[in-house]
Amino acid sequence: MVRRIRRTPWEKLSLTNNCTLGPLNKPVATIKPDETIEVETWGCYKSPRNRTKNDCEGTTVRSSRAVKETLRKNVLSFENPITGPIYVEGAKPGDSLKVEIIDVKLPNVGWTSARATFGELAGWLPLPQPPTKFSRINDGRITFALNDGRMIEIPAEPFIGTIGVSPAFEAISTTTPGRHGGNMDVSDVCVSNTLYLPVATDGALLGLGDVHAVQGDGEICGTAVEIPARVKLKVGLEKNKELDWPRIESKSEIMTVCTSKPLEDATRLAFLELIKWLEKDYDFERYDAYMLLSLAARARIAQIVDPLFTVVAKLPKKILPKRRA
Amino acid sequence: MVRRIRRTPWEKLSLTNNCTLGPLNKPVATIKPDETIEVETWGCYKSPRNRTKNDCEGTTVRSSRAVKETLRKNVLSFENPITGPIYVEGAKPGDSLKVEIIDVKLPNVGWTSARATFGELAGWLPLPQPPTKFSRINDGRITFALNDGRMIEIPAEPFIGTIGVSPAFEAISTTTPGRHGGNMDVSDVCVSNTLYLPVATDGALLGLGDVHAVQGDGEICGTAVEIPARVKLKVGLEKNKELDWPRIESKSEIMTVCTSKPLEDATRLAFLELIKWLEKDYDFERYDAYMLLSLAARARIAQIVDPLFTVVAKLPKKILPKRRA
Amino acid sequence: MVRRIRRTPWEKLSLTNNCTLGPLNKPVATIKPDETIEVETWGCYKSPRNRTKNDCEGTTVRSSRAVKETLRKNVLSFENPITGPIYVEGAKPGDSLKVEIIDVKLPNVGWTSARATFGELAGWLPLPQPPTKFSRINDGRITFALNDGRMIEIPAEPFIGTIGVSPAFEAISTTTPGRHGGNMDVSDVCVSNTLYLPVATDGALLGLGDVHAVQGDGEICGTAVEIPARVKLKVGLEKNKELDWPRIESKSEIMTVCTSKPLEDATRLAFLELIKWLEKDYDFERYDAYMLLSLAARARIAQIVDPLFTVVAKLPKKILPKRRA
Amino acid sequence: MVRRIRRTPWEKLSLTNNCTLGPLNKPVATIKPDETIEVETWGCYKSPRNRTKNDCEGTTVRSSRAVKETLRKNVLSFENPITGPIYVEGAKPGDSLKVEIIDVKLPNVGWTSARATFGELAGWLPLPQPPTKFSRINDGRITFALNDGRMIEIPAEPFIGTIGVSPAFEAISTTTPGRHGGNMDVSDVCVSNTLYLPVATDGALLGLGDVHAVQGDGEICGTAVEIPARVKLKVGLEKNKELDWPRIESKSEIMTVCTSKPLEDATRLAFLELIKWLEKDYDFERYDAYMLLSLAARARIAQIVDPLFTVVAKLPKKILPKRRA
Repeated sequence: MVRRIRRTPWEKLSLTNNCTLGPLNKPVATIKPDETIEVETWGCYKSPRNRTKNDCEGTTVRSSRAVKETLRKNVLSFENPITGPIYVEGAKPGDSLKVEIIDVKLPNVGWTSARATFGELAGWLPLPQPPTKFSRINDGRITFALNDGRMIEIPAEPFIGTIGVSPAFEAISTTTPGRHGGNMDVSDVCVSNTLYLPVATDGALLGLGDVHAVQGDGEICGTAVEIPARVKLKVGLEKNKELDWPRIESKSEIMTVCTSKPLEDATRLAFLELIKWLEKDYDFERYDAYMLLSLAARARIAQIVDPLFTVVAKLPKKILPKRRA
Repeated sequence: MVRRIRRTPWEKLSLTNNCTLGPLNKPVATIKPDETIEVETWGCYKSPRNRTKNDCEGTTVRSSRAVKETLRKNVLSFENPITGPIYVEGAKPGDSLKVEIIDVKLPNVGWTSARATFGELAGWLPLPQPPTKFSRINDGRITFALNDGRMIEIPAEPFIGTIGVSPAFEAISTTTPGRHGGNMDVSDVCVSNTLYLPVATDGALLGLGDVHAVQGDGEICGTAVEIPARVKLKVGLEKNKELDWPRIESKSEIMTVCTSKPLEDATRLAFLELIKWLEKDYDFERYDAYMLLSLAARARIAQIVDPLFTVVAKLPKKILPKRRA
Repeated sequence: MVRRIRRTPWEKLSLTNNCTLGPLNKPVATIKPDETIEVETWGCYKSPRNRTKNDCEGTTVRSSRAVKETLRKNVLSFENPITGPIYVEGAKPGDSLKVEIIDVKLPNVGWTSARATFGELAGWLPLPQPPTKFSRINDGRITFALNDGRMIEIPAEPFIGTIGVSPAFEAISTTTPGRHGGNMDVSDVCVSNTLYLPVATDGALLGLGDVHAVQGDGEICGTAVEIPARVKLKVGLEKNKELDWPRIESKSEIMTVCTSKPLEDATRLAFLELIKWLEKDYDFERYDAYMLLSLAARARIAQIVDPLFTVVAKLPKKILPKRRA
Repeated sequence: MVRRIRRTPWEKLSLTNNCTLGPLNKPVATIKPDETIEVETWGCYKSPRNRTKNDCEGTTVRSSRAVKETLRKNVLSFENPITGPIYVEGAKPGDSLKVEIIDVKLPNVGWTSARATFGELAGWLPLPQPPTKFSRINDGRITFALNDGRMIEIPAEPFIGTIGVSPAFEAISTTTPGRHGGNMDVSDVCVSNTLYLPVATDGALLGLGDVHAVQGDGEICGTAVEIPARVKLKVGLEKNKELDWPRIESKSEIMTVCTSKPLEDATRLAFLELIKWLEKDYDFERYDAYMLLSLAARARIAQIVDPLFTVVAKLPKKILPKRRA
């Protein structure tokens, strides 16, 4: 029996509690370590045109007057609401959360929006103001319609765009990624992978949202295929396993996720974390680790449109020696 | 019968002619469009310890006194000598070179070097001065030896690290990448792929060198598995096909290669070039192209250790509509 | 009769209330618009060696065991405590605070510290770990002692390093500058100048600290002459004067203060704010404003050592036309 | 009797010889060390509208058909022609040029131009395409006319925007600044100051142009008050005084000038050069130098519109101890 954690209704969303990750935020649920939960997530709200399309099943719900009024006043502030915070019993600063992503249920429609004055290429090419586009999602495929009627089919590769814990004493907007996770927009936070997050406050205070049905590296127009979703997670706790930044493991790779500006600083930090990982878990000397990365690492630009930029650095497990128990 | 273009002997290397790409440089050979050539390349010389290891067959040659004297005075300047320039008959500004990479012959040893004060992580982590490491290359596999004796096996994925044409009127160091190509360190410049370079001066003045047996994204310690090599190329000419930046095609992807600082500018330029490509060859409207990239593009960090940084942006051919004839 | 607002005693400092600026923080005082107050400020605590030197009069106080214990556990977190937040009656989002700086009382000693792994030049030059240096402050002059015994005299130019209001819904560390002010380290926030801050939450929630007796542009070793102080301010309220970023006025200049990364983005934002100021208050057309800046503006690098970087852009009043009433 | 070095006539300008600084360029004059010369300089040509206004006395000259044809084909390439290269007898790599700026004669009109797609704020604010503006220069004052007829008076502060020597083996566009000088756009290269340039090739190969009648920090719209001019210089030679970057001395300050991207790297380099200067000429220990900068240095943004960005770091001489003989 999997417990479901519902979205806070739109009318009750709070700017502080749902749009930041912070130590003073009030938990909406408490879970035990290794509990499996299903979390309903809000889609990202960067486009006001999408206000009514945010049902988890993909059907259209009608906005109440209250919702519309709230949006009119706050649409920018509520752009990336999370479900949470979720209090994890026993989690303390110095521990790590181990989040196994078991399943992501998609609606049958997602949206993509760009703005002439937002996104990576604002100011780099003349752009008329475009409409929001809605893409059908069906049977694992996304259909993106060109303006001239041609259809582009893209395989769905859903992942959790925003997932994080509370920082130690700041309260950081859910639009911003960082050491605590947050709006990382990393497509490797997907089904069958495991995300590790550094706990900085009692209970960890996990929150998530902003699932994407698919996303290109960089997320360059500022949005992907934005969707509400239902996400099934198993949330474990690794006591006294201190991390400086989020990490991911897939069957075939170890990955570090770092966020900074400019982009090369995010890249350097991600490689640095890989070096620390090789030193600690694989008994590498530092320079061996450094050189091996220069020969075999992969570095992917996750996003360059959020307030800080995110890079994922990866090593294939098949070339690594045996791991320390 | 394939013509072979030999390396300028070490004693005769010229700082201006072999260590820049520029319009005043003197061609070492003239070829016809669509001619297939085999080019002997120098390995990169960032490490003075490797002075004698630069034989194309991988055997060790002994340095003459003259070589040693030259190196003593100029080792930093000669760090990335190219073979060339090669004059391509009929090439004019506004044309593009189409370079098909047919084969890369490797020696049986390559080297990797890092310096405490060079490379991406200089200043980010305490590093003792390391030795240069030599890795065996055998049967498509590279053996990288850890200090404690463990061996890491990495599949060889050789590519041309430095390849470019002359700029219009500048003479740019072969250590620096740019619109003209140069030291891009892009692992997609490999066998069976085709590289397009924008011609900026009569004859194009192609030069190449710095082959890597394998390289991780970012080339973060400043070197990969550095080797001299023999490279077989077919050099075609596309008249009146003006390009702003180098492009690459593989069987499955279209790719743009851009260079700038900071790294996000290189990324933006690479995406911008993909948009222009979609507009011109696939009849996309601009916003459709922009959004599609945000859904399906891949962006890889080629290197962040040269004087300017290089990013490759890619789209899979299988999701693209039919190309304009 | 000027009201004095005392520092929260060291033992009672709170990581959330004294080390962030945020909307959930609890005011320590409420003032009326146009009230003049005298605020006791903590010095910055980047150096643990300075733990006992933080008395406003410059005498040395002995640390209690409790203080030492707190520091042992939290020294990094408490590195920049503020006095506040101060609730300004009637302040609402959309208003601006007008902070006139009337007087800054200095102690007779300040400290400067650098770390081999902190500050602008970490990783750019080999540095041994240095001691903290204490400089005497006397009669408006600072005496900085070289290791070989020579004395350098520098005129004191004291200013408030950290001053800001609460963001709308985030709680931002007092070590970080931004739109809300914070750790800007701008030497123009000095006696006889007026600082304008954009109000984002009811009561504004003003906080300040981190006075410097003098500072070089860039604050490149990570600290200036760090001091506790007593600051006399008149805090006014400008209703419905919406600002995007802090501004400063002196007798001779108008100034904008912006914070971002990389540094050129901070610079661009500061110029952009000057353009908006010329458009609104001096009836400039946009391009006239843009060109005039290119002819007559000054741009100073305030600091490049905090989590984001700060630039001040300035125009001399004497070349400007008459201001709109 | 001062020798005058004339501009190469427009019809005879060469893209390689007049628009790069490089070791293969042909000298237009040879001078002896400590010779005083008067150099006629071209104005910058970023605006094609200004094609006919480039007479040193400020009168309008009529373009010949040849000039127009040349411009039609090459206007972008010829945007910043220099007068030179000037061969300095006896100059060798490892020496420094000491350039004393004695006088700058201005014409009576200068121009300023911005483009919606060029300059620091391109893409940051919506801009219509503006006209080029011509400002009168008279009796040390510049009159900048607003669109509504108001006149802004700015004191003239003329300086040499582009001045440099040949790099060791590259040929760098005269639009790009660097270690060799070039398009630094530093307003401290003005009358009564002395500029030091590191010699990298025999004869130094000095070139200059792009004088500005006045310029704001950052040169943010991409141009200043652009003028042709006559510049009187005394060119000295300091044997075996190796510099890494240009330096400037005024009566009251020592200054370093560094160029890089992003802007914080230029800033770091400029401070680093000041530290090296304090170590070498004032017997400072490194950490004393580092800390003193953090207390007393000034950092000014020279320009952020050229291909690389330039920063000047300064220390007041009056606080410095006695200099080593």
